[in-house]
Amino acid sequence: MKIAIFRKAHFNAAHRLHNPMWSDEKNKEVYGVCNNANYHGHNYDLEVKVVGEVDPETGYVLDLSVLKDIIKKHVEDKFDHKNLNLDVPEFADQLASTENLCYLIWQIMSAQLGDQYEVTIKLWETPRNFVQYPAYG
Amino acid sequence: MKIAIFRKAHFNAAHRLHNPMWSDEKNKEVYGVCNNANYHGHNYDLEVKVVGEVDPETGYVLDLSVLKDIIKKHVEDKFDHKNLNLDVPEFADQLASTENLCYLIWQIMSAQLGDQYEVTIKLWETPRNFVQYPAYG
Amino acid sequence: MKIAIFRKAHFNAAHRLHNPMWSDEKNKEVYGVCNNANYHGHNYDLEVKVVGEVDPETGYVLDLSVLKDIIKKHVEDKFDHKNLNLDVPEFADQLASTENLCYLIWQIMSAQLGDQYEVTIKLWETPRNFVQYPAYG
Amino acid sequence: MKIAIFRKAHFNAAHRLHNPMWSDEKNKEVYGVCNNANYHGHNYDLEVKVVGEVDPETGYVLDLSVLKDIIKKHVEDKFDHKNLNLDVPEFADQLASTENLCYLIWQIMSAQLGDQYEVTIKLWETPRNFVQYPAYG
Amino acid sequence: MKIAIFRKAHFNAAHRLHNPMWSDEKNKEVYGVCNNANYHGHNYDLEVKVVGEVDPETGYVLDLSVLKDIIKKHVEDKFDHKNLNLDVPEFADQLASTENLCYLIWQIMSAQLGDQYEVTIKLWETPRNFVQYPAYG
Amino acid sequence: MKIAIFRKAHFNAAHRLHNPMWSDEKNKEVYGVCNNANYHGHNYDLEVKVVGEVDPETGYVLDLSVLKDIIKKHVEDKFDHKNLNLDVPEFADQLASTENLCYLIWQIMSAQLGDQYEVTIKLWETPRNFVQYPAYG
Repeated sequence: MKIAIFRKAHFNAAHRLHNPMWSDEKNKEVYGVCNNANYHGHNYDLEVKVVGEVDPETGYVLDLSVLKDIIKKHVEDKFDHKNLNLDVPEFADQLASTENLCYLIWQIMSAQLGDQYEVTIKLWETPRNFVQYPAYG
Repeated sequence: MKIAIFRKAHFNAAHRLHNPMWSDEKNKEVYGVCNNANYHGHNYDLEVKVVGEVDPETGYVLDLSVLKDIIKKHVEDKFDHKNLNLDVPEFADQLASTENLCYLIWQIMSAQLGDQYEVTIKLWETPRNFVQYPAYG
Repeated sequence: MKIAIFRKAHFNAAHRLHNPMWSDEKNKEVYGVCNNANYHGHNYDLEVKVVGEVDPETGYVLDLSVLKDIIKKHVEDKFDHKNLNLDVPEFADQLASTENLCYLIWQIMSAQLGDQYEVTIKLWETPRNFVQYPAYG
Repeated sequence: MKIAIFRKAHFNAAHRLHNPMWSDEKNKEVYGVCNNANYHGHNYDLEVKVVGEVDPETGYVLDLSVLKDIIKKHVEDKFDHKNLNLDVPEFADQLASTENLCYLIWQIMSAQLGDQYEVTIKLWETPRNFVQYPAYG
Repeated sequence: MKIAIFRKAHFNAAHRLHNPMWSDEKNKEVYGVCNNANYHGHNYDLEVKVVGEVDPETGYVLDLSVLKDIIKKHVEDKFDHKNLNLDVPEFADQLASTENLCYLIWQIMSAQLGDQYEVTIKLWETPRNFVQYPAYG
Repeated sequence: MKIAIFRKAHFNAAHRLHNPMWSDEKNKEVYGVCNNANYHGHNYDLEVKVVGEVDPETGYVLDLSVLKDIIKKHVEDKFDHKNLNLDVPEFADQLASTENLCYLIWQIMSAQLGDQYEVTIKLWETPRNFVQYPAYG
């Protein structure tokens, strides 16, 4: 029997949206206030969904405290109280957008959990703006 | 790469449930307090999900402030502080139910966004009662 | 020992803001969309705070299920799925504003609970707009 | 036209995680504080999703107050203010985990609603830990 | 300049309401389902308010991570995943009610923080039922 | 009759905690991850409470849409998508802490609203950490 388990987490980070291939004018036009050179920030809320078979002996798909620890070590410690543009190597050459951050967290969690689990990541930049990968996961 | 983006919005409206083909007794029996002739109302909460390809240049599926403006102009301005039964032409000849309102908002948003996006609408009548179209979107 | 207990409740109602002493133009100017002649509506959220002595025998200031029943009978049943302007006699000759509704609920609950309790009412018209009486209760 | 309707509910219950096939040491190691012999408890939050055709006459997939009453009678009354391990027969010989409770509620609701509806159950043990069956419902 | 700082926390516990001086019938009558002999449980939410002078050098009333650690060590570790009636010595001879638990946490936090701070405790048994001590803190 | 009205708002900003009078070591020791030289950020949530007399003619203490516009112009536009340390002149020579930001917003709102209103500001840095000025307002 397959079941889905979910764990919520959060981290606080600074970022800006800026495409170095463009002029300052075009960046300002496309990204508006999100382009502020001095950065702004968010309390990111994260929901990790993990789908797998229930282990008949433990009754668990995966111990939620194990999942909590993986998220803490590989996601929260990497992004919390950081500047996404300056402190996270993966954003050295790509836009620090919520879409890209969501996909990066999906890559991290999928690699940690391995092939017997299917992962979906939902990431809130604000309570009203959020993204999900895979789109129908 | 397809990703889902979400934007939340809300509007306040009055409505009543009443089927003009039925007697007053049957309306009262089927719809209960929701049939009150003087109307009642709700703070409707709305979640618009849009699935599409990430634009490699901007990093966006769709600029969330563009999505916000479309929702404001075509949904919030149409329904906010209105009486669904009396002020919204589409409900002149169909029941002003949450199910029908959800489907109407899906039609509006799908037409505005065009074929390259897939839209799912989730609509809360109260924090405990809500609907979604498409059902598995 | 005095302690405060709280109980939350909610009801859905239609209303409009309209001062019959004024012209239609002035009503429109002062109340804007809230003046819509066909009404609009809200999910009102209510918080009732009751301060009193803890009964040493039961350990209760007041049994919360008793408080729940008083709120159900004297507040929810009176306002839920109603039109405040048309269905509530107290608003026949005063504005159906959140301020006045809050004070009316305070009068109802204070009368029901009697002198040994001090009541404070907090009333949400939307999650972002709300009022409280007494102001520092 | 198929649409999804949702109803939220909640109940408060005590439980412990304990596998009688294991030693006390192994139970402590696997389940940690959740294994406390004297039980602990939760405010469980429940979301019932029901997918079906909209009835063209009533405008309903299913009257939400009917759904509310089925949940009250067959889920809330069965689990609320109970000890899952001692008061619920189905947990006499299986682990009282959130996964198993979610699947049990899915069985109950599916049997009550019948074949013309598809049910998905989402069950929160805490605001940060929750499960869903079916996994992609 | 005095300012208030707040920190939220939570713990999950089992309890029952039972007055040993009364007959089983009277306990059942006064406490209803809360009297279940096998216990039930809650996710308790806690808000600790601390009022004090801002330290001109650090800009803090009290470092919130220090406050978080005190709450963790002296409140969460004492009550989380416990049976209030059986595992907490203070409830051996008094009712394990939310009112008494709130006052006990106020005593613990006041003693830990000392005389230069004024403490107020708000404690949720459910999202709709909660208490506060002092009543106007 | 005095009544309290409330309006919620929010803004997203970057900041760091750093006392220029101290060594880097002492800053790191006192402020921990909040001292990150590249900044981090938050979604700040704001609650503005305004106490005043109800105007017998309009039924308002103060039109909530007027209050909303004052907050938008004098608070949100000043802090949203900004770096508190670099973009806000008032933090050039004081710590950009939640306590100081709360007091600054209280000064701004009190000056805007004038002497006939009493203002209280509650400011959330995260859902679990927040402050209020005046402490018992």
